[in-house]
Amino acid sequence: MSMQTISIMDYIGTFAFALSGAYLAIRYELDIFGIFVCAFSTACGGGITRDVVMNVGVPRFFSSYTTIMIVIVASLLAIATKSEKWSKLMLTADAIGLAVFAIDTGVRGLDNGYNLPQLVFASVITAVGGGVIRDILLQRVPIVLRKEVYASAALAGAVVLWFIYPIMDKMVATYISLAVVFGIRMWSVYKHIDLPVVHLDTSESAQ
Amino acid sequence: MSMQTISIMDYIGTFAFALSGAYLAIRYELDIFGIFVCAFSTACGGGITRDVVMNVGVPRFFSSYTTIMIVIVASLLAIATKSEKWSKLMLTADAIGLAVFAIDTGVRGLDNGYNLPQLVFASVITAVGGGVIRDILLQRVPIVLRKEVYASAALAGAVVLWFIYPIMDKMVATYISLAVVFGIRMWSVYKHIDLPVVHLDTSESAQ
Amino acid sequence: MSMQTISIMDYIGTFAFALSGAYLAIRYELDIFGIFVCAFSTACGGGITRDVVMNVGVPRFFSSYTTIMIVIVASLLAIATKSEKWSKLMLTADAIGLAVFAIDTGVRGLDNGYNLPQLVFASVITAVGGGVIRDILLQRVPIVLRKEVYASAALAGAVVLWFIYPIMDKMVATYISLAVVFGIRMWSVYKHIDLPVVHLDTSESAQ
Repeated sequence: MSMQTISIMDYIGTFAFALSGAYLAIRYELDIFGIFVCAFSTACGGGITRDVVMNVGVPRFFSSYTTIMIVIVASLLAIATKSEKWSKLMLTADAIGLAVFAIDTGVRGLDNGYNLPQLVFASVITAVGGGVIRDILLQRVPIVLRKEVYASAALAGAVVLWFIYPIMDKMVATYISLAVVFGIRMWSVYKHIDLPVVHLDTSESAQ
Repeated sequence: MSMQTISIMDYIGTFAFALSGAYLAIRYELDIFGIFVCAFSTACGGGITRDVVMNVGVPRFFSSYTTIMIVIVASLLAIATKSEKWSKLMLTADAIGLAVFAIDTGVRGLDNGYNLPQLVFASVITAVGGGVIRDILLQRVPIVLRKEVYASAALAGAVVLWFIYPIMDKMVATYISLAVVFGIRMWSVYKHIDLPVVHLDTSESAQ
Repeated sequence: MSMQTISIMDYIGTFAFALSGAYLAIRYELDIFGIFVCAFSTACGGGITRDVVMNVGVPRFFSSYTTIMIVIVASLLAIATKSEKWSKLMLTADAIGLAVFAIDTGVRGLDNGYNLPQLVFASVITAVGGGVIRDILLQRVPIVLRKEVYASAALAGAVVLWFIYPIMDKMVATYISLAVVFGIRMWSVYKHIDLPVVHLDTSESAQ
């Protein structure tokens, strides 16, 4: 993969996640600073967490002003439009962010010789970590634990990438993996597919 | 301590914590992916947090596939049994995990020349960090803040280890410290001992 | 800035934050261990998070026993006084902690060649990170998202510092920046100033 393609993917994911974070903050009636914090956490929280855990030094986020400018623009755009008539568009943007962050991280991981657990962990944490931090801040049960195909779509794409990246054209392998994440996510959104739930045998109530 | 004994302790703690995390997830009616995330967070969250804060490089968790396999097996076992008739067994397993993670980390810390605050912090965060992350994800007030002797048992064991490890046989010191954590924890469970609570003098309500 | 002045500032901020964390824990009826955890998280959580994210090695917190002693003393003082008759004093102490942690980190950051996003992130996370961790543990919506001028005061001070520190006497620049954070925060407390809230155009209820 050319560095340039990866960077563009990164920016698209950042913009999509920042926008979705900002809209959610507006829905929760946060003040303008809260909207920005929420957009920033959603867009940058996953990547910063990955860089901290994988010990790559100062998180890549800090190496340029571009990311923070994207977050600011997305926040202002959300404030200016103040509407959810694009909520379907937002679900699509969020799925794009999910796919881009998972596979972008996966490609970098493979280039750095990650083993499978490292690759899966880094991809999934980058893709869903920002949303988890945002949900914790907003006191919601995090998106990864709600009954939805979300993190599992990122995980599936990372595993596919792990197997096909070494044996085919890198560009093609990347696009296939992106399509796996995006496809699974959008398919579950439109079909309302959830993963199965296991029920306890006892009738004891939750603690 | 032989490296092998430490590894076996590590695996037992991982299994016990993963099992308890998975059972809790089932009680909260999470889907199968959520059960795995919950088992993983409980079993590995403390150790990863410790490795990140103590700056040891890429967390030890990622150096082998063994840990993740243990988490998967424990999750499947919880799903297969789907019952809480072993809830007393689980409390015991959890106490074993607490003792093993605290003292395992303490021994490694002493071998690496930690000072007392570093040793106590690393031991306690490893022992209770996974449970805290799990509780935050499930939107429960974390276990360390609920009225129970839990983190304080890990702390007591770490302090005991700090004093006796340099002056006696390392194996004996390790087992004594393990017994301190496990004993205090089980004793508080069976006697329903809580730490004292301080009450405000004012009659003002909570903010 | 002399290293000594910075250290004294650090200690004052630690004491103020630990005291406010301990009082909050008492109000939430936590046990004595919970009070200490809450004081510790409030006072040290921001600095440890900053050191972990900015990859400075083992967090500075662990390099001496002084900080932990300050936290213990503050916790005991809160337990001994058990009263909120000083709640106005606490708001002032908290504002001092906010200013000191933000600008102390900013000065160190400038001495280490941070760019603006790094400086702002490090300053704000140090100043508000401890409070955010405390609020997450206590299951409250974090202070940065509530309708108050809080993190934005730290941010304003960091930006002012960034512009004036290179062009004037370092001591004067530091005190001006401290005054900016403290002044904005206290002014908003006494005038009950909040940042503006953006409202959605739709009448849809929150998800």
